[in-house]
Order: sequence, then structure tokens, then C-alpha cells
Amino acid sequence: VDLVRAWTEHIGVTRPGVWPGEADPFGIHNLPYGAAILPGRSAATVVVRVGAQVLDLNAACSIFRPDLCDFVSGTDLNPLLDAGRSVWTDLRASVRVWVVDERHRRSLEPLLRPLAESRMCLPIAVCDYVDFYASEHHATNVGRLFRPGTPPLTPNWKHLPIGYHGRAGTIVLSGTEIIRPTGQRQGEPVPEFGPSQCLDVEVEVGFVLGARTKMGEPILLEDAGDHIFGVCLVNDWSARDIQSWESRPLGPFLGKSFATSISPWIVPLDALGRARVAPPPRDVALMPYLDDSAVEPGGFRIDLALEINGNVVSRPPFASMYWTPAQMLAHLTVNGASIRAGDLFASGTVSGPRQGEEGSLLELTRGGSRPLTLSDDSTRGYLLDGDEVVIRGEVPPLDGNPPIGIGEVRGRVRPAEVRRGS
Amino acid sequence: VDLVRAWTEHIGVTRPGVWPGEADPFGIHNLPYGAAILPGRSAATVVVRVGAQVLDLNAACSIFRPDLCDFVSGTDLNPLLDAGRSVWTDLRASVRVWVVDERHRRSLEPLLRPLAESRMCLPIAVCDYVDFYASEHHATNVGRLFRPGTPPLTPNWKHLPIGYHGRAGTIVLSGTEIIRPTGQRQGEPVPEFGPSQCLDVEVEVGFVLGARTKMGEPILLEDAGDHIFGVCLVNDWSARDIQSWESRPLGPFLGKSFATSISPWIVPLDALGRARVAPPPRDVALMPYLDDSAVEPGGFRIDLALEINGNVVSRPPFASMYWTPAQMLAHLTVNGASIRAGDLFASGTVSGPRQGEEGSLLELTRGGSRPLTLSDDSTRGYLLDGDEVVIRGEVPPLDGNPPIGIGEVRGRVRPAEVRRGS
Repeated sequence: VDLVRAWTEHIGVTRPGVWPGEADPFGIHNLPYGAAILPGRSAATVVVRVGAQVLDLNAACSIFRPDLCDFVSGTDLNPLLDAGRSVWTDLRASVRVWVVDERHRRSLEPLLRPLAESRMCLPIAVCDYVDFYASEHHATNVGRLFRPGTPPLTPNWKHLPIGYHGRAGTIVLSGTEIIRPTGQRQGEPVPEFGPSQCLDVEVEVGFVLGARTKMGEPILLEDAGDHIFGVCLVNDWSARDIQSWESRPLGPFLGKSFATSISPWIVPLDALGRARVAPPPRDVALMPYLDDSAVEPGGFRIDLALEINGNVVSRPPFASMYWTPAQMLAHLTVNGASIRAGDLFASGTVSGPRQGEEGSLLELTRGGSRPLTLSDDSTRGYLLDGDEVVIRGEVPPLDGNPPIGIGEVRGRVRPAEVRRGS
Repeated sequence: VDLVRAWTEHIGVTRPGVWPGEADPFGIHNLPYGAAILPGRSAATVVVRVGAQVLDLNAACSIFRPDLCDFVSGTDLNPLLDAGRSVWTDLRASVRVWVVDERHRRSLEPLLRPLAESRMCLPIAVCDYVDFYASEHHATNVGRLFRPGTPPLTPNWKHLPIGYHGRAGTIVLSGTEIIRPTGQRQGEPVPEFGPSQCLDVEVEVGFVLGARTKMGEPILLEDAGDHIFGVCLVNDWSARDIQSWESRPLGPFLGKSFATSISPWIVPLDALGRARVAPPPRDVALMPYLDDSAVEPGGFRIDLALEINGNVVSRPPFASMYWTPAQMLAHLTVNGASIRAGDLFASGTVSGPRQGEEGSLLELTRGGSRPLTLSDDSTRGYLLDGDEVVIRGEVPPLDGNPPIGIGEVRGRVRPAEVRRGS
């Protein structure tokens, strides 16, 4: 069945507004998964997005694929994540048929709800969260700012994708307000304490994992697709003053752990086939477990935009990342670490090679020393209370194909809370 | 009711072996919680240890306290952890009465099972795992080895308890075999790859958290006891060669994430009242949120022992820790980070001021350069395949009180697995 042609043929006969057009970034080519409280319900349901509608997957599977109900009958995607690649492929193929085929569509319409009337929820119960540092341009920019006078990249950087664990329990859904964190920062003669004065964003892409493994069973580079279910956007909020004081010698902790926001839609890896691009040329020979010269291109053409109070201040290109998601996953598990369904890893800040492609205010403003000017003539070194940050992502329209939306992750900064004892 | 006296009076009339004596480290003064598969069962049950027996808590509550069943009817302690301090106190008081009071004891006996016939399970579903670095002696020893020529403690060390997030998904129960991890290490002219040559242990004490909080609500120092449910032992296995190559600039990752072992019994904080000791004098003034000069002593007298193949190679004293668990928790949340029931934080390696009190082979052997000699005349710089490591802990008998057992965490090293692609 040529699904795209079938879709086009049927587009004229459906009720306007219910079925998306061929070019819809969240239409037939995408079909991202999420969790939503549908109108009239009190608990979250697993859904797939079809343009401006969401489809109740449990209800749909009850009719057409009862054998798949167990994977989509909960309040988050975790059972589906654990089911593994064959179920993911099977379910996605089924949804595509339902949406395209006239007989199925009629049965489906009562199960569709307007996205605008649904309340999105955190799509996954996040198990472990790992954040990488995979952009050479970001690592170079940060190295220059934090360690002036030394080579900006540490000697290990081109040999392995550097990463560290973050706090899974403070991962929140897009739209959640972010309370400015309080903490210690460097000071003379003694450190100071108070609300962070350097609250920043990090534009990142996240990868949701499934098909749990056992300890001692590394995931090979070429098998990464069996475990990467899909992609979302991540804002890894960072308090630079807290971070820089605390980070020696064990890395970031409270400068990051107060909140990390993710976008509501998990775009299936299967929807991103045509976004694949080769990563940049490698400057040093890679060890066999990271050598991707013989596998399908591991980079992804995802164009990102960082917006502060409606001003687009940066356009980071994910295609410029030095390390690919498959390399990150191979590295994460090469020591025998197991993964669970619901693990999330993020790319680290995406910064491109050019000015205006930096994925953090730290870089855009050179540590606050060259503030940005917004459209209302106000300036920003770092974020002010009340600022709203939106990160958007999409696979651009290429070779006549429509765009694939990754969605957006949004958050407004709330003032620090004043507390007893501080 | 004087429980101890009541206990003593009854001790003569019970069947030998069923009820522990007054001096049993896991008897009436301790009553630690765990999860076990009881004889004849297939799933884990929440239990309390009474000497050499385990008590099925769900069955006991069904009879005596049906209102508490919801907290102990699952396969791990998490619902109990989330219930909060008032339920913890209530349940513990009830268990003490059941065990001491003659009428209750008769009903209880059918619900007791020999520990030796029960299979212990991971007592908690671990949410977030944070590892601190709270021993001044350990941090000093490590600083001297890793950063010779610079002050061994970083400038932040005495101002805040340094910590970082670890991998919750690879926390395993005592007894689980540990596969030697494989990974990159420094090499000239290029890094090398292979099984770690510097596999080490870290003797630590862990703290299990409950009573979840919301983001933006730090836990005050004086409220730490409302959230620290209990204590266990932790072996934070470490591959020093992998760790030292990867750790700049974002801290440890694969050098730690392959496995962390915990002991099966969670000793209630309420059982440790008489173990409290004042921490060492502070060398710098602490910020108000960490200032514990006006609260109950925050240190704990827990004597630890590190054993390799039956040789006790070190006796680290937990009382020597610079930072207390309450300070660690206040710091962990001062930025507004929330906690969940089932979070675990560990103290970091416990090392005392004297030779023979170091909590890692890194320190005991000065980075492998001064190997230990074991009783079979073999030597160890780091661990060899087949080595069995046991960490034990107990509150020593003090002022006529019997000891309180913390238990043991045990693990044997398995050879690295040989894999395709590496």
C-alpha cells in the first residue's frame, strides 16, 4: 500500500479539521506518541497525535488490535517502550493504516479528541537520565569561558562522548514554571548564598530508550535503533553561578538538578529516517565500539530555535553534533551498564559553528558580558524572572517531503522562593 | 511500657531460636525492614527482621493493623517510604509491641519464617541515586593522588557537601556478582580499551528517603529526620582507570555506573538514636542552611569493616565524616530539587584519619603502588577476578546497650565479558 498516495486520495472526503493535510508536521509522516488527559477524563491516556487531534490508543487498539492493548493501556509510554522494536514497528504501521484507510477512519473518528482540549502529561516515567556533551562547538565555547588559557577541549573529548547522570525526579513537562534556584556561588572572601544570578537554558535533543537490557550486555552501535524509541526536545535549565562553584571535582549537581523540561511528544525514530545525515568528519580514529563509518548515517537534521519572550535568539543545528545518538548509547553501555524502558539521554547543548547558533545564554552572551538586546529594547545576560523560554525543533522540508515537527518545550521563570533558614 | 524489660521477662518462655535474645544485633532494638521471597512464595513480600527470623508484615498488619496494610502489601518498601514519619513511627511501635507482648507473639509465630530459608530482594525501587564525597580524609587522600602539587581539597569542599548523581538502574542487591567493566583508559599516544585494570570498592553508608516533596520546597536541616527513613551499606564499585580518563570536566560516569551494591536491610533511623555523635569540629563557618550547631548531633557512630576474601583490610569509622546525612539532604534540596520516596543517597567513601581506616583500595594501596598482602600471601593493588568483597557495619555496643547491626553488602568479581565489536 502506498500510504502517502492513499492519504492524499482520501483527504478530500473527510470532515475539515479532523484529518491533517499531507504537509502537516504532526500528520501521517510523524504520528508522535504522548500521554494526555482527554476531555472528560481524570487520568492520563496513551495517545498518538494526528495533526491537531489526539487518538486514544488504548481505545483504538481495543477495536483493531486487542493484542497490543497491554502496551498502551497505562498512563505513560513505559510499557510500550519495554515492548521493543518489533512492537513499535507493528503499532506504528497499524496506526498509519487506520489513519489512511477509509473503513478504519470512520471507526476512528469517535476516538479522536482535539489536542487543544486535551491536557498533555509527562509522556514517560523517567528512569535514569544521562546528559551528554556531544557538541564540539558548545564544548569549545564553554572550555574557552571556563578554562581560559588551556586547550578548550579536554584530551578525552574526541575519543568518547562525555556524559554524566542527571536528576530524573525533576524532569518536568513543557509548560511547567521553573522556580529560580537558590544556592551557593563563589565569593570573596567567602562564598555567597542566594537566588542564582546566572539562570540559563540549554537547547538539547533527548532520546527515549526502551527494550531493557541486562547488566553486562553492552548495546552495539549497530543495534542502537533497537533501543532508541524516539526523540523529544530538552531544556536543561542551568544555574551557571551555582554550577561553576560546585563542579570541582565531581561535576555539575545543584546547578542542574532543580529542573529539566521536556517536550510532550516523542517522535518515533522511524519517522526520522529521512532526517539522517552523516556526522562531521572525525579528527581522530575512533575505537571499534564507536566507529560508525560502516553503519547508516547517525546524525539527524533537526533544526532548533531558541526563543526568549518571543524573540528568536538562536538557531542551533542538531546536524552539527560531533557524536551521534547511537554512539552515545554505545558508550553509555560499553561498561556493562544496563538500560531500562523509560531511560532518557540528552545530547547536551546543541551549538553550531556560527554566531547565532549557540544553544545557551552562557555562549550567546559570553558569560553575560555581551548581553542580548530583545525586541522591547531590554537586555539579557541571563534570564530574568518572568522570562518565557521556548525551544522548537523540526526536521525541515527536504526533497519535496513535508517537515516533521519535534514540537516545543516551554517554560517561564518564577522568582526564587524566600525561605526560612536561608 | 518498658519494652526492653517486657522482652527480657518473656525470653524464657518462647521456643528457642524463634525469638532473638536481648543482645541480638537484629533484635528488638533494631527491627530493620526489607523485602524477601518467603519459603513457598514466588514474589517478594515486605518483611521486618526479628533476629534470625523474618516477619511477613502484610500478614501481621492484616491481623493487628489492617489500616497499615496498604503501606506493606507490595513487593518493596516504597509505599511505606512515601507514607512519612508518622506512619513509620506508628508501624515500628506496633511491631515492637507485637514482638514483646505475649498475646501478640503467639499470633505472630506462624507469620515468622527463618531468614536462612528466605531469599532477600532489593528492598526499594530506587528512584534517584546521589553519591556524596563527605569524608575529609577520603577527599584529601584522593586529592593527593589525583592532583599532586595542588591543595588536596578543592576550595568549595568545606563550604558544601559535594555530590553528584549516579545510575539508579544498576543498583543491585548484596550478593549479586559484579562483572568487571570494560572501557577506555588513558594511554600514550592514544587511549586504550579493555577490561578495567583498577577495579576498586568504596565503603559507604546509604540513606533511604521517603515522604516526597514538591519542587521549590527545600528540606530544612532540622526536618531531615522526616525524610530519612533508614540506613543501609553501599559498595560503590569504581573502575579507577576508566574514571580518571573520562571525568574531566563533568565528573565520574562509566567508572561508576556499571554497578553499585546495597545491603538488604534498611535500619530505621529510629533505631540509631543512641548512635548519634557530633561531627568533627568545622574549620569554616557554615551557611545557615548547613549550620547544625543548634540541632541534635548529626553524625552516627557506625563502625565499618572492609573484607577481601576473608581478610579484614580496613575499618573505616563513619563517625569521622565531616558532613552529616542531614546536611547532605539539606544541600541536595536547597536549590528546590524535590525528592521521591525511594531516593537513595550515599555518603561517599568513608575513610578515617588513621592508616587502616581507608575505605577504598585506591587509598589503601596508594593507587596500587603499595599492594596489600592477604593471608594467602597473594597481593592486591586492585581487585582480581574471583575476589569477594564484604562490607559490614554495626553500631557498637555502647553504655551497656547491645550492638545494632547494619548488615553486610557482599559481591564477587566476575571476569569481563568478551564481546563482539570491542
